[in-house]
Amino acid sequence: MAERFRHVAIVGKHQAPGIRPVLEEIAQFLCSSGLEVSLEADTALNTGLTGYEALSNEQLGRQCDLAVVVGGDGTMLGFAREMAHYGVPLLGINQGRLGFITDIPTERWRESLAPVLAGDYEMESRAMLEGAVLRDGESIYSALALNDVVVSRGATAGMVELKVSVGDQFVANMRADGLIVASPTGSTAYSLSAGGPLLHPSIGGWLMVPIAPHTLSNRPIVLPDVGEVRMEIVAGRDASVNFDMQSLASLLHGDTITVRRSKHQVKFVHPQGWSYYATLRRKLRWYL
Amino acid sequence: MAERFRHVAIVGKHQAPGIRPVLEEIAQFLCSSGLEVSLEADTALNTGLTGYEALSNEQLGRQCDLAVVVGGDGTMLGFAREMAHYGVPLLGINQGRLGFITDIPTERWRESLAPVLAGDYEMESRAMLEGAVLRDGESIYSALALNDVVVSRGATAGMVELKVSVGDQFVANMRADGLIVASPTGSTAYSLSAGGPLLHPSIGGWLMVPIAPHTLSNRPIVLPDVGEVRMEIVAGRDASVNFDMQSLASLLHGDTITVRRSKHQVKFVHPQGWSYYATLRRKLRWYL
Amino acid sequence: MAERFRHVAIVGKHQAPGIRPVLEEIAQFLCSSGLEVSLEADTALNTGLTGYEALSNEQLGRQCDLAVVVGGDGTMLGFAREMAHYGVPLLGINQGRLGFITDIPTERWRESLAPVLAGDYEMESRAMLEGAVLRDGESIYSALALNDVVVSRGATAGMVELKVSVGDQFVANMRADGLIVASPTGSTAYSLSAGGPLLHPSIGGWLMVPIAPHTLSNRPIVLPDVGEVRMEIVAGRDASVNFDMQSLASLLHGDTITVRRSKHQVKFVHPQGWSYYATLRRKLRWYL
Amino acid sequence: MAERFRHVAIVGKHQAPGIRPVLEEIAQFLCSSGLEVSLEADTALNTGLTGYEALSNEQLGRQCDLAVVVGGDGTMLGFAREMAHYGVPLLGINQGRLGFITDIPTERWRESLAPVLAGDYEMESRAMLEGAVLRDGESIYSALALNDVVVSRGATAGMVELKVSVGDQFVANMRADGLIVASPTGSTAYSLSAGGPLLHPSIGGWLMVPIAPHTLSNRPIVLPDVGEVRMEIVAGRDASVNFDMQSLASLLHGDTITVRRSKHQVKFVHPQGWSYYATLRRKLRWYL
Repeated sequence: MAERFRHVAIVGKHQAPGIRPVLEEIAQFLCSSGLEVSLEADTALNTGLTGYEALSNEQLGRQCDLAVVVGGDGTMLGFAREMAHYGVPLLGINQGRLGFITDIPTERWRESLAPVLAGDYEMESRAMLEGAVLRDGESIYSALALNDVVVSRGATAGMVELKVSVGDQFVANMRADGLIVASPTGSTAYSLSAGGPLLHPSIGGWLMVPIAPHTLSNRPIVLPDVGEVRMEIVAGRDASVNFDMQSLASLLHGDTITVRRSKHQVKFVHPQGWSYYATLRRKLRWYL
Repeated sequence: MAERFRHVAIVGKHQAPGIRPVLEEIAQFLCSSGLEVSLEADTALNTGLTGYEALSNEQLGRQCDLAVVVGGDGTMLGFAREMAHYGVPLLGINQGRLGFITDIPTERWRESLAPVLAGDYEMESRAMLEGAVLRDGESIYSALALNDVVVSRGATAGMVELKVSVGDQFVANMRADGLIVASPTGSTAYSLSAGGPLLHPSIGGWLMVPIAPHTLSNRPIVLPDVGEVRMEIVAGRDASVNFDMQSLASLLHGDTITVRRSKHQVKFVHPQGWSYYATLRRKLRWYL
Repeated sequence: MAERFRHVAIVGKHQAPGIRPVLEEIAQFLCSSGLEVSLEADTALNTGLTGYEALSNEQLGRQCDLAVVVGGDGTMLGFAREMAHYGVPLLGINQGRLGFITDIPTERWRESLAPVLAGDYEMESRAMLEGAVLRDGESIYSALALNDVVVSRGATAGMVELKVSVGDQFVANMRADGLIVASPTGSTAYSLSAGGPLLHPSIGGWLMVPIAPHTLSNRPIVLPDVGEVRMEIVAGRDASVNFDMQSLASLLHGDTITVRRSKHQVKFVHPQGWSYYATLRRKLRWYL
Repeated sequence: MAERFRHVAIVGKHQAPGIRPVLEEIAQFLCSSGLEVSLEADTALNTGLTGYEALSNEQLGRQCDLAVVVGGDGTMLGFAREMAHYGVPLLGINQGRLGFITDIPTERWRESLAPVLAGDYEMESRAMLEGAVLRDGESIYSALALNDVVVSRGATAGMVELKVSVGDQFVANMRADGLIVASPTGSTAYSLSAGGPLLHPSIGGWLMVPIAPHTLSNRPIVLPDVGEVRMEIVAGRDASVNFDMQSLASLLHGDTITVRRSKHQVKFVHPQGWSYYATLRRKLRWYL
């Protein structure tokens, strides 16, 4: 049996219709199970749910030892980044189709939560990417990403050309629509659409996947997660970079995007018996 | 022996350094072979070559029965579109690395041209795409393309969603970075980078290739070239469309991009013994 | 309204459990609709269904103007080849999951058949491949294929090397696990697993798809269906060739597999409103 | 400076024409550099080179602290497996086109070897796979592989179906032409042809790549190298398994192929400044 949780925060995809009653039931259930319950401030504000303390992300990060996230993979992704500095474990309840990282269906939240509160759960850590943009040697932007850092060509421009290096080693100049650096968690997201492989979460490496590369042999490559990945913009107008979904546009020639392993990790709480491969089977329909 | 040419136009990638002497030698050679020689107006203007009549594209299209294009595949692509309405056959001399559609190396232009002028050549036709953008039922843009028509997502936007139909049949809603409709000629260009197959020029069909599609089974598909391909923008900000390389940005939801077979064709003149497969072997390095 | 059918043959995947009652009901329904009904000999023998004349494939081919095939895509594939010389139209009723070429679900056979018998249907033709194996200039084997002709390496041997030509043109020497030549119908079968695109049935071309090719740029290619495709075995032990699913093993160096367009076509009968793209959407799960 | 070598073995691809003089010159050079020089027994026997002690692989493994391998990647692969138990470092000199793991060209062996002997080199370790075949619970075959373990369908059989698990977790049942489990070293070999990504040698993981899988979403996956990969043959006639290139044919239903990380590693000696990415650039032609 693992350690028991004491103070739980509830976070909801508040714009989703009909989410308020679900959140309220979950809050009541947690209360009646003897836990202290708080609401993430935006969730409280937008749903109008009262009777529970509303906490800012910082308060939440400092005080809570579990966050129950109700929504989809996108909701989880955004909140996981917010919690990265605090290490609060996250448990995902999915409103719609099950996701890759929100693995409890709404219909079964009660029977799934009960054993978790009793200490019967699995804790899993996921690596995060720490990205930055350097211009003239100065960092002009930095952000964490759980899924991926993506450099893309301008909308009406031709390919972007990037000079790629890892640690102190030159890799290659690559010309493509874009270049994805994905974590194992991100290997089931955009990277998969662009032709990348799946990466088990325990693999210590990043996936680098060129999007529609000019050179056909520029295949996806799994890079070590020690040392820094550097992508310098050598050619191409109006390139931009995305960290998960936050964008910085209008990059200039010479701008360099760096990616390294963050010292922070995201912690996911799963019901006992959770299986990464079962998630793959279900999401990718690996049935014969 | 095929028909002999009488009046040749010379077109050059005039911004390429050192191109003037080559153009001049070719002009002299053609003259001394008894042909009437003209220069495309921009080529004349930018290289300062004199002694030959400079013609506008329209004059050139009406008067010449051959155009010698000196440059790369891009030069040829641009000029081929200009000549599409006139049916002037094109012969490509490549300054740098040989291209897919400019197949005579500069070093051998003389020995390659001589037999062509003597009537010893092959003529090949390539299908062209006629594209348009409909907004509220009105055409707001239209253009010809030899390679491809490409709908793309906005630079910092998520995927674009397109409702695709062919003739009167609904195909699917597709979510992707973009969607390429390519001619057989375009199958060796952008489409190839995005994972498309090669299409022999004699195939009566278009290639539809999604770029980084959300649904993994949205594979490239070869569509009949009878009937119109329609792509309606259903979701996604700031989508744009490219016809070969000419862009129209800021598309709106409801805008529909249509592609049909143009009644015009591009005619390429090749030295006798030219082979499409030899071009593939050389460009794609199909050597063991 | 199209022409009405008069004499229908019934063919069943007779080894499938519980197929007899379905066949019997269909036979009765056809009888009571005023059609002459016969059974394919093997189907009659193995199901023990009596009361209907049992016909050999040859008799069936000469006498019937429609064959109702109850089973899966495999059943249809095998019987389509048998009927190729006779041009008997085929209608497929699928017992299990719907197939690419058997598009009426068992549960709805009655409501689907009724309008067809009334002349309300669509007729569609599919191209067939005619393959042969030449040894020392002599044909030692030949067969028709609706899906594909596949040359494969020996099980414990390394790659096979094939010298490929189309018509009188050399294409390339290819080293791979195997090489698939597929019809448009076959583009949704093995070829798709090996990375090939989809080919609309109206496209006049074959798909050539190398399986795990040594040269990464040996991409799938759509070839014209005029002229003969030739694949000569240049290296590799114990290669074999499959025509749909019929195999010839132990090929020798110098053996040449030829593929050309058969003069025969397969005719499929579909309920009115049938759509190729709807089949793709359903089978490939093209839903967002 | 690293430790200096004292006793060097020379191994040659003895069937390669013209290899004897190269081996002789290398031997003389090593001798004159003050090292003890031995010949691998088969190399001595087949080239007729005399004047150096001929050693069996076992003697060589116990006595030598460096082996110079002259040949191609195949020669190195075979010998690396032989040396795996002894940990003798290997240095590869490539006779023909440079390989992925034999990175010194014949023309430059002298200038490359001299600094290596002076202690100026890099040592790199590569993980090896330890594979076995279990039948009725008993191991009937086992072998080491540096590149990959591959399960393949029978030559004239349909797909093989494998029940795959990793450690104590079920992954999926997969139907395909075959399934490759590759080390990072093997990611540039067969796996690459089958659509797999590149894996940097420092990644602690295996690549699992299905060959022409029935389910399109059965994408390549990078698995942790802790715990055992198990592939049970569930369906398919005449399946076989290859460990690098050694084959075991005629596998039966229920036979299980296991793959785990070997406790042995292969050690490669590279000239100072060697770069994995430079090898990729050269072999995969990553030039713009």
